[in-house]
Amino acid sequence: MKTPVAIIGASGYSGEELVRILLSHPGVELTAVTSRQYTGQPLGQVFRKFANHPQARNLKFTDADPAALAKAARIVFLALPHGVAAEHAKPLLNNGCRVIDLSADFRLRDPAVYKEFYAHDHPAPELLKDAVYGLPEVYRDRIKSARLVASPGCYPTSILLPIMPLLKGRLIKATGIIADSLSGVSGAGRKAEMDFLFVECNESVRPYGIPKHRHLSEIEQEFSLAAGEEVIIQFSPHLIPINRGILSTLYVAPEQHFGSEAQRKELAEKITACYQAAYGNEPFVRMLEGAALPDTKNVAGTNIIEIAWRLDPRTGRLVVMSAEDNLVKGASGQAVQSMNLMCGLAETEGLLG
Amino acid sequence: MKTPVAIIGASGYSGEELVRILLSHPGVELTAVTSRQYTGQPLGQVFRKFANHPQARNLKFTDADPAALAKAARIVFLALPHGVAAEHAKPLLNNGCRVIDLSADFRLRDPAVYKEFYAHDHPAPELLKDAVYGLPEVYRDRIKSARLVASPGCYPTSILLPIMPLLKGRLIKATGIIADSLSGVSGAGRKAEMDFLFVECNESVRPYGIPKHRHLSEIEQEFSLAAGEEVIIQFSPHLIPINRGILSTLYVAPEQHFGSEAQRKELAEKITACYQAAYGNEPFVRMLEGAALPDTKNVAGTNIIEIAWRLDPRTGRLVVMSAEDNLVKGASGQAVQSMNLMCGLAETEGLLG
Amino acid sequence: MKTPVAIIGASGYSGEELVRILLSHPGVELTAVTSRQYTGQPLGQVFRKFANHPQARNLKFTDADPAALAKAARIVFLALPHGVAAEHAKPLLNNGCRVIDLSADFRLRDPAVYKEFYAHDHPAPELLKDAVYGLPEVYRDRIKSARLVASPGCYPTSILLPIMPLLKGRLIKATGIIADSLSGVSGAGRKAEMDFLFVECNESVRPYGIPKHRHLSEIEQEFSLAAGEEVIIQFSPHLIPINRGILSTLYVAPEQHFGSEAQRKELAEKITACYQAAYGNEPFVRMLEGAALPDTKNVAGTNIIEIAWRLDPRTGRLVVMSAEDNLVKGASGQAVQSMNLMCGLAETEGLLG
Amino acid sequence: MKTPVAIIGASGYSGEELVRILLSHPGVELTAVTSRQYTGQPLGQVFRKFANHPQARNLKFTDADPAALAKAARIVFLALPHGVAAEHAKPLLNNGCRVIDLSADFRLRDPAVYKEFYAHDHPAPELLKDAVYGLPEVYRDRIKSARLVASPGCYPTSILLPIMPLLKGRLIKATGIIADSLSGVSGAGRKAEMDFLFVECNESVRPYGIPKHRHLSEIEQEFSLAAGEEVIIQFSPHLIPINRGILSTLYVAPEQHFGSEAQRKELAEKITACYQAAYGNEPFVRMLEGAALPDTKNVAGTNIIEIAWRLDPRTGRLVVMSAEDNLVKGASGQAVQSMNLMCGLAETEGLLG
Repeated sequence: MKTPVAIIGASGYSGEELVRILLSHPGVELTAVTSRQYTGQPLGQVFRKFANHPQARNLKFTDADPAALAKAARIVFLALPHGVAAEHAKPLLNNGCRVIDLSADFRLRDPAVYKEFYAHDHPAPELLKDAVYGLPEVYRDRIKSARLVASPGCYPTSILLPIMPLLKGRLIKATGIIADSLSGVSGAGRKAEMDFLFVECNESVRPYGIPKHRHLSEIEQEFSLAAGEEVIIQFSPHLIPINRGILSTLYVAPEQHFGSEAQRKELAEKITACYQAAYGNEPFVRMLEGAALPDTKNVAGTNIIEIAWRLDPRTGRLVVMSAEDNLVKGASGQAVQSMNLMCGLAETEGLLG
Repeated sequence: MKTPVAIIGASGYSGEELVRILLSHPGVELTAVTSRQYTGQPLGQVFRKFANHPQARNLKFTDADPAALAKAARIVFLALPHGVAAEHAKPLLNNGCRVIDLSADFRLRDPAVYKEFYAHDHPAPELLKDAVYGLPEVYRDRIKSARLVASPGCYPTSILLPIMPLLKGRLIKATGIIADSLSGVSGAGRKAEMDFLFVECNESVRPYGIPKHRHLSEIEQEFSLAAGEEVIIQFSPHLIPINRGILSTLYVAPEQHFGSEAQRKELAEKITACYQAAYGNEPFVRMLEGAALPDTKNVAGTNIIEIAWRLDPRTGRLVVMSAEDNLVKGASGQAVQSMNLMCGLAETEGLLG
Repeated sequence: MKTPVAIIGASGYSGEELVRILLSHPGVELTAVTSRQYTGQPLGQVFRKFANHPQARNLKFTDADPAALAKAARIVFLALPHGVAAEHAKPLLNNGCRVIDLSADFRLRDPAVYKEFYAHDHPAPELLKDAVYGLPEVYRDRIKSARLVASPGCYPTSILLPIMPLLKGRLIKATGIIADSLSGVSGAGRKAEMDFLFVECNESVRPYGIPKHRHLSEIEQEFSLAAGEEVIIQFSPHLIPINRGILSTLYVAPEQHFGSEAQRKELAEKITACYQAAYGNEPFVRMLEGAALPDTKNVAGTNIIEIAWRLDPRTGRLVVMSAEDNLVKGASGQAVQSMNLMCGLAETEGLLG
Repeated sequence: MKTPVAIIGASGYSGEELVRILLSHPGVELTAVTSRQYTGQPLGQVFRKFANHPQARNLKFTDADPAALAKAARIVFLALPHGVAAEHAKPLLNNGCRVIDLSADFRLRDPAVYKEFYAHDHPAPELLKDAVYGLPEVYRDRIKSARLVASPGCYPTSILLPIMPLLKGRLIKATGIIADSLSGVSGAGRKAEMDFLFVECNESVRPYGIPKHRHLSEIEQEFSLAAGEEVIIQFSPHLIPINRGILSTLYVAPEQHFGSEAQRKELAEKITACYQAAYGNEPFVRMLEGAALPDTKNVAGTNIIEIAWRLDPRTGRLVVMSAEDNLVKGASGQAVQSMNLMCGLAETEGLLG
């Protein structure tokens, strides 16, 4: 029998992407979608692209009544702004649902850090101890039994996956890490703001949120856990005129010098082995070989993250690059990957299409 | 009387941009344009956008005969691939022309570095001593009297102008500099290659040439001259789906610690003063204030470079960002800026339109 | 057991899209892909986006040997240029394969019309009698048993489906039809030509092939069959800067006058009923209601065609608009729809993802 | 001495484009810019791209006080929504200013038509008799002495200029005209609406306002005047993902049959002669020759309209195509062209840059 699932806040870009994936997912049935704005309207009318999908025929947007949702669904996805998400999580958990939250509300272990970065008190600090950071490649086992998954942000995913194995393997220093990231405009959400009008984004590229973007907090938390020491990083997000995709270029310093060709070769082999051990069997991590470098167009619409790296003997640095779809591996696909784990399904179920 | 000028290789994107600027320039007359491919065809037929320009009526593409060009023009622009440019420069200089070369051929002082980065012997090493690096904000006086100007590349301009005053002012360390740059597709030139097809670039972002892009060589040369010591940098170019523009994000380390708020404030004042001294009167450098960050759309079609910076007390770094039009300040506009200096015209002549 | 299928010419945009659909198709197994250019290379290396797909692991590009393909596959897709396709079709049919050709080679019943529009003799006129025009909404039954399917072009699909029911129902005149169509750049194929460079297409829109584009021939053939008389239409294709999608705006004249509101209402009901009869049960035709008008972004990546229409009492015309993905419903998705019919599978199998 | 000019509503896309043109215009001085939203802020702060322009240094946004503006400027541009513009025009005219209105308020001669298309009573019907439709190629002499110029809309310009000479010359029928137009997103104005977000427009193309868009009214008015009889046309606007530009494809029926090659040739000569007579000396109309067809990228940023045409002997139709920049020839450039006429300046002054 298919597991019934629901989405709260299904009208934003992440919510819409969840709908797309879940409608075609063979292991679950999407039984409810909510949106304050569209309550009462058929899903296929609001998002015409789903109108012909057989599963979408009977779905109407409802309001987010936790008791009703708890009856309709075993797992509930929250695709809501931070602050709001936590408020919905509480009654759903109390009603016995398992919750996968795509907001930042449960990603940070320390409510003080939350307050520093999000500028308000944490709305449900008592739940933090139950939350599992939903990065399956790192926390697979804990996700399986979690009742509350904090699905990672789009930038953090693109930065954590390429670097965490190197940090854990002590191949790189925990200091001096720089993450320079480029995001498509869907990352800004479906909001009617001048800055995100077509004319303002097309033929434009710009940094923003420098030097202290909110996503820093969860990146540093996970890096610190991986390194076993406090890690402070430089993070520079930029907006580029594509719909979907994040490209991160990451600058790190290997622990080992590699001035000679022999040292370089030895280090390269260690890095290769490190990634092979971490990701050799991961279905959604694509380590690039040869001359290939990541490109968002090769991952758009998929749950894949592409990773490549180059040692630079001139500077003594290692440059790691990654590409992902910010709405799939950076949001909704990854959330479904966690759901698959929670339901005991194949991790790739519904995510290979 | 207007100075007669000519363009060799006027059919690429830089050449076309030179045509655009020079046709409307009040101080010069464009008397000849050459292109192997289009010899004999009227300019306005090959580039329809110039067809209605009164100055364009009598211009036909010719071949690049140096004697004929020397009769037709006092200043000749070379918008040619590296290697080819130097071969054209020699006879033109011998015929008494002054030459502004937009290729890399005369940018490097050391022919051995040229060979390392461009993979062939320098075609005219005897001319290197005469060449002036055509960055007016740095070499204004020498450009005025130069007979051979090596106009800088698009990436180098976007990296040198933001950083050189800081290096010269000893405000930052000469080590550990990282330049992460994003370029529009016109930077790849007008070449029929699959990688630059619309479908391959649209909805795509990708790094390339990592870790040793050719433009590194001239950046490091100029940084070394500014710092008074050898500078090695990390440079990561990326291709993004815009026609025009380069956005560079530059990571440097201030000499001075700024852990306390007082130290941060003091350092910020020094940086402000440094830029003010360097660029306070520069017509084409726009130092951004307040919350503003560079955006290529604000400089597209202009000869302006926008610069902003942020101190990050968390990491101890200074992040400097710049935006320019790769075809104007990054190529043809800057070349015309040099031409204005060489002709004794106002430096902004024909460049404020 | 899954039907084995193969693709000849799998490296163009249509071929790549066929690969994408067939790899995830539950009813078939993609056993061979050919490409002159990439022979010997693994599929996942040439098209990195397929590298992680379990089905792609063992696929390498081969050359297009008909005997080998006939052993490997029951159904062979031809994603080749016209002229070339017919040459491949013959030996495959002789070897017992069923063939779905995405080129124009078998779409026209009359080899003289082929010669008029494609400027060379038809390479295999003897096969024309066997070919079925692969528009499932029109020729479903004949496709089921066809051994040679001529899958329609992208423009024709976007024009035929909206208009054929009206012509057959005698609701509109067979004269004076105008089709004004806008295509994404993938319609031009994966070819290294200057006209399709990013910089030449971005911020550009242009008509081409006016007034006699090749696709006219198959549109007029099918309209003539539907109307029972010879139909001549006006067709104006344009290139717009999107990767995927065709939007067609179609101008036709209703047989019936509708000057009065009562007449307009009556006619509107007839049109509604006509489309309902034709497409009420079609899984891939979405008739829009209310204020909705077609938008390519709502069909990109899907096999759906969206259709809306408006009566204009001021001009006496009916304006019909459609949107489709030129690579899916306009090419590869439609070809797979035919394949499903040929294999006795559900027509939507593998096409709802 | 330079004529002082002002812009009311300088913060929209048309207003911004007016600022760009007027700042570099040698014959006028921009003395005032108004914007409710930005009152008190320096122009170069709101529109950073103007910050380095010497003329912009002393300009701050003010509110639109007519008495103050009448002191500051002889000519005032209104870049305001319809309805609002007329209210500003009255006091300015009363204070002795000449007014160039870029809205629709004074384009229609008949206030009843205005009410039909704009859904409210005309705010100043008494001024309509003074207004001159600001299409210089048609109403040059009347514009010179006008005190109120109603500058045409972007769609109408792209449709009127290609067709009016043919109508006036009785070369085409006044019935059955179809205009199919494609507009860049700046045509929608600088408004924070979901429909015009980058993600909603990129990779999207869609018709809108079909079948009765507001701009129909002024097109039909001018066509009727040209034809000497009432003209009703079909007009279909579409939104495409470019910043600037309109491409119109126009379907008309020649009066004369051209079934034979001799007739076709004769008619082609008449059309050529008709356009030559109308536009042979027009600086901003580019009649394309040979195989060339209009392309918005060749007119972006310029005041040029490109026109090409094709006779189709198969259908008996003439297809005329045009391309213009919707913000320049379709709005602000054309308004400045009128201003040049009003000031006795060369018509191309400030518009050839």
